[in-house]
Amino acid sequence: MNPTTREIDILVSEVGPRDGLQSIRRAMPTDAKHRWIAALAEAGLREIEVGSFVSPKLLPQMADAEEVVREALNIPGLTVLALAPNLKGAERAIGAGVHKLTMPVSASRAHSMANIHRTPEEAIEEVRKVCQLRDSLPPDRRPAVEVGISTAFGCSIEGPVSEDWVLKMATMLVETGADSVGLSDSTGYANPVQVKRMFTRLKREVGDKAGAAHFHNTRGQGLANVVAALDAGVTTFDASQGGIGGCPYAPGATGNIVTEDLVFLLESMGLRTGIDLERLIAAREMIRQGLPAEPIYGNVPEAGLPKGFVYASGRETELSDP
Amino acid sequence: MNPTTREIDILVSEVGPRDGLQSIRRAMPTDAKHRWIAALAEAGLREIEVGSFVSPKLLPQMADAEEVVREALNIPGLTVLALAPNLKGAERAIGAGVHKLTMPVSASRAHSMANIHRTPEEAIEEVRKVCQLRDSLPPDRRPAVEVGISTAFGCSIEGPVSEDWVLKMATMLVETGADSVGLSDSTGYANPVQVKRMFTRLKREVGDKAGAAHFHNTRGQGLANVVAALDAGVTTFDASQGGIGGCPYAPGATGNIVTEDLVFLLESMGLRTGIDLERLIAAREMIRQGLPAEPIYGNVPEAGLPKGFVYASGRETELSDP
Repeated sequence: MNPTTREIDILVSEVGPRDGLQSIRRAMPTDAKHRWIAALAEAGLREIEVGSFVSPKLLPQMADAEEVVREALNIPGLTVLALAPNLKGAERAIGAGVHKLTMPVSASRAHSMANIHRTPEEAIEEVRKVCQLRDSLPPDRRPAVEVGISTAFGCSIEGPVSEDWVLKMATMLVETGADSVGLSDSTGYANPVQVKRMFTRLKREVGDKAGAAHFHNTRGQGLANVVAALDAGVTTFDASQGGIGGCPYAPGATGNIVTEDLVFLLESMGLRTGIDLERLIAAREMIRQGLPAEPIYGNVPEAGLPKGFVYASGRETELSDP
Repeated sequence: MNPTTREIDILVSEVGPRDGLQSIRRAMPTDAKHRWIAALAEAGLREIEVGSFVSPKLLPQMADAEEVVREALNIPGLTVLALAPNLKGAERAIGAGVHKLTMPVSASRAHSMANIHRTPEEAIEEVRKVCQLRDSLPPDRRPAVEVGISTAFGCSIEGPVSEDWVLKMATMLVETGADSVGLSDSTGYANPVQVKRMFTRLKREVGDKAGAAHFHNTRGQGLANVVAALDAGVTTFDASQGGIGGCPYAPGATGNIVTEDLVFLLESMGLRTGIDLERLIAAREMIRQGLPAEPIYGNVPEAGLPKGFVYASGRETELSDP
């Protein structure tokens, strides 16, 4: 169901409309979400996590998920992804027609209970049910089921998390039928040595089912971890435009790594993303319109591109030091 | 002349009192500099660039360099480093008794003319004169002479800079007698692929005379570049506490990489720095006292250390998520 795309080396999966917006108390109006997602796709983003099919009582910011998915499905070439915390959410997401579902599972027992009121094993069983639902659908209506293992690099409740357990979970998740399993560091605990080791092991354990790296920049280590993950062969990275939804106790510390800074990193390293940085930076205006006065982060948008910057594809740009 | 030190894997060279303060128009009072440098040394910094022996007309913030050096020399175990732009500055620095001199040389012809009114070749000749001066001194009074090649990764005036030329300059500088030659990215142009390639070449060309990596975080890529430099075997990194002296047109974009975030990166990667993060973070107070209301950056000081954080030495810490 993935759209055919021009060749790229790395897939940047934009999670701002889900991970970013769900961390902000105010809701971005549905129309503004439509415009933002359209602008991101226009900039070359090929995959966008557009919302979460969680209870609107828990996250009213995500109450319009069906509508946002349906509108996004009109954008040619875009892979529309949504988060579903459980079977019920997956049913709604599939009803709306998503191309891909992502399900959160936490390696830390304490975090799993606090976050989704399930043990890790119960969360894995929920993934199994969703995969069974997927398999019951006609082949052309089956969404891909992705899982991101959160607290994979450490937990703010438990502290260190067993790497063997994380890898065992990954294997169990593939056995349930998940199409890909990634590793998430939502609390900014990861370091490059650990990242390289864990993604190398993940690939050894689950082969081409090894999924995305999802890093936050809480302690400023996000892009350093990307370099290590690239070394381990990771080819999909989550990021959020403007790093929105930043850590409330760390002003200037973004939540997700900033898409703009990530794309600059990758392109300057010679890795094609298919993304136009000028258009991407212009899309920040949609956040400003949809959530006035919300802090937006990112160094590249402020500093501009280096003089003489050339994309990995060889394309030059006019954008440079302001 | 280096003090004997406990074993470390990576030398973090603090440049805040020079590179940071010279980028801020207001001057930090001399007493406050003394207290800040003492607090940094107390936190475990073994090398501090304490000032610049440039004309006080050009940089009045550095007019007290002699006094700051003399006070810093009283701190046991500290390597006292100062910048000298030319022979005259080097004479002053040597008179004050520095352990090490660092001299700036720029690979970009346009930047070199704009910054020090000399061609790169003339700047190299100035290094030769300083090395001759050094060699004329009694052996126990000879400071080490370090050179950082600025605009080594690109120039905001010229754009891309020839890598072959940068490497040729490094060889020429070693021939003049420089004890070490590092590469500097003061404008935030570098990317990890380039960093790894350039430092690998530098080591091949000049062997153990290969010096420090000096990165700025202008485009958020500073620590990503550190990971690449570590891969190339670099063992000395410049950084500035609080990232002070940040890029004026990039709010939140620090100048030098932030010492606190760098030390966290290195220690969490298992590389011993000998630095105590709690004491280092406490030293930020000295900047606040010496330069009230000056922006101070850094994600680790805001977010705290991860729960269960362990130093590379195996030492545990009480400091964790606030």
